[in-house]
Amino acid sequence: MPTEFQFIEILQKKYALTKIGDDCAVLPKDSKTDLVVTTDLLVEDIDFRLDWSKPEFIGHKALAVSLSDVAAMGAKPVWSMVSIGIPERIWKTDFVDKFYKGYLTLAKKYDVELVGGDVSKTPERIVIDSIAAGEVKKGKAVLRSGAKVGDLIYVTGELGGAAAGLSILENGVRYADPAKIWQKNLLLKQLQPLPQIHTAFDLANKNSLTAMIDLSDGLSSDLAHICQASKVGAKIFADKIPFHRNLKAVAPTFDEKLNYALNGGEDFELLFTVNPKKNFQVKKAHQKIGFTVIGEITANAEMIELIIAGKSRILEPKGFRHF
Amino acid sequence: MPTEFQFIEILQKKYALTKIGDDCAVLPKDSKTDLVVTTDLLVEDIDFRLDWSKPEFIGHKALAVSLSDVAAMGAKPVWSMVSIGIPERIWKTDFVDKFYKGYLTLAKKYDVELVGGDVSKTPERIVIDSIAAGEVKKGKAVLRSGAKVGDLIYVTGELGGAAAGLSILENGVRYADPAKIWQKNLLLKQLQPLPQIHTAFDLANKNSLTAMIDLSDGLSSDLAHICQASKVGAKIFADKIPFHRNLKAVAPTFDEKLNYALNGGEDFELLFTVNPKKNFQVKKAHQKIGFTVIGEITANAEMIELIIAGKSRILEPKGFRHF
Repeated sequence: MPTEFQFIEILQKKYALTKIGDDCAVLPKDSKTDLVVTTDLLVEDIDFRLDWSKPEFIGHKALAVSLSDVAAMGAKPVWSMVSIGIPERIWKTDFVDKFYKGYLTLAKKYDVELVGGDVSKTPERIVIDSIAAGEVKKGKAVLRSGAKVGDLIYVTGELGGAAAGLSILENGVRYADPAKIWQKNLLLKQLQPLPQIHTAFDLANKNSLTAMIDLSDGLSSDLAHICQASKVGAKIFADKIPFHRNLKAVAPTFDEKLNYALNGGEDFELLFTVNPKKNFQVKKAHQKIGFTVIGEITANAEMIELIIAGKSRILEPKGFRHF
Repeated sequence: MPTEFQFIEILQKKYALTKIGDDCAVLPKDSKTDLVVTTDLLVEDIDFRLDWSKPEFIGHKALAVSLSDVAAMGAKPVWSMVSIGIPERIWKTDFVDKFYKGYLTLAKKYDVELVGGDVSKTPERIVIDSIAAGEVKKGKAVLRSGAKVGDLIYVTGELGGAAAGLSILENGVRYADPAKIWQKNLLLKQLQPLPQIHTAFDLANKNSLTAMIDLSDGLSSDLAHICQASKVGAKIFADKIPFHRNLKAVAPTFDEKLNYALNGGEDFELLFTVNPKKNFQVKKAHQKIGFTVIGEITANAEMIELIIAGKSRILEPKGFRHF
């Protein structure tokens, strides 16, 4: 069987679907603007667990994951829709109220208008489909496919926190418990992630980014997506990767931390590439989230090298995938 | 607990969501055009059953239900997205291939471009979220809310066929069996419905329709949606309702046929209202599907009268709803 990514490639070719395969589809809106649209499916017990989260967080995260895709195109999110399927026993609780509260609080924060949706019954588990759309200057959407040999590879923020949050959930720590600050930080990174909306928009407007993707599957996989779409390779330096400040409590050794940061996923930070000859600038307001050069684009098509302590090894994409 | 329709109304008011509540949201596109968008969730064992249908039909129907919503705005469908969640054991079969074949064959028929989607794993059952968008002349989308007292109420085609198809499925008839012609007709109406795309577009362009909705929940419920949105009532005549030509085999009495036609749902025909003083016209090519006046809009807000053999009774919305 093909992986999910291979399957999408097969579909693309078989039916000549030219607009699929990036974080969002780019569609013409008017003479000055393109519309970008994305959809993300979240399934109970696969993407979230009711006993690990709370309805407000689930609503928040449902929107956050799609806004992050919009952000990764360098676009400003504008509107959204959400479909929810829910078992009768949960319909009878206050779950939906709190779900929409979490969803709409985040929507308000980024001035995103909920314009539609669907409510359906399911036999057992909750499913959510989150649709978001944004606007970007015509022709200026930042794709995965524009990275060039020699470009610098940047990430925003710190990596591995969301996966470490998942790990402590798996070990029985709960958000409602009287947890330690570092535990709360990691749990929130997993349960209530903040997409880099303003940062991405500012970045894309102030710089000529050659490619961008949000870190949802994990750095190793998401960088592979950029390399594949751009038909290039990459070399990254393990000691440059910014680990989440609280990662050490969960992952004491360097190798463990590196594994979380490379393969953990769901950090919803940005991974992007920039021509080193161009001046790189960001608004002061966004500088505090941090921008780290972790490596550069190479000519070895679809091969990613990881340099650890001066030695090079091949980095396989080991981030999240369903199939 | 509120019904799903009441819940949507509560959300609408609580968060001032002005764009939800119609078949599609209407969004500004450019100076001449509005974009309409919709999303529909389909859940295995609620909205479809694998042993009652086939993957191509499920793919077809997933798109058809959303195209029907776009059509009901008087818009021309343009692009779509589809999210699919699927258990691992079905991922390993040819289900997805055949699903997309059915989906994309219908998409091609109406020149709709699949621009995005998501693939996710589910623990047990398939879920599909179908998103479709269309274009309509600015300000010309046909809403549910424009029906006026005295307007004539029309339906297209014949009603009750899809529900009768469901009924024979429940009684063990299968599409793959050597069924009779009337059984195949009813099964196809249920399993592979044809949305009234071209008819709706022609209707809306040639006439000033005051309101329109697609018949997905069932005539009694869908007419109630128009009455509620338009703050009017309606009077319909039982003997005017066009029954599906094959309904008699499943529903021998008039009352049984009437029940299928009023409350069955999923016919994906159009229900619309027209000012009787305006000339009503449709292209010759579309006349063969049939346009039947079944009653008129009244001032009795949100009350629907059904006239049977000269006697009036109140018609309660008894179409499909999840909650």
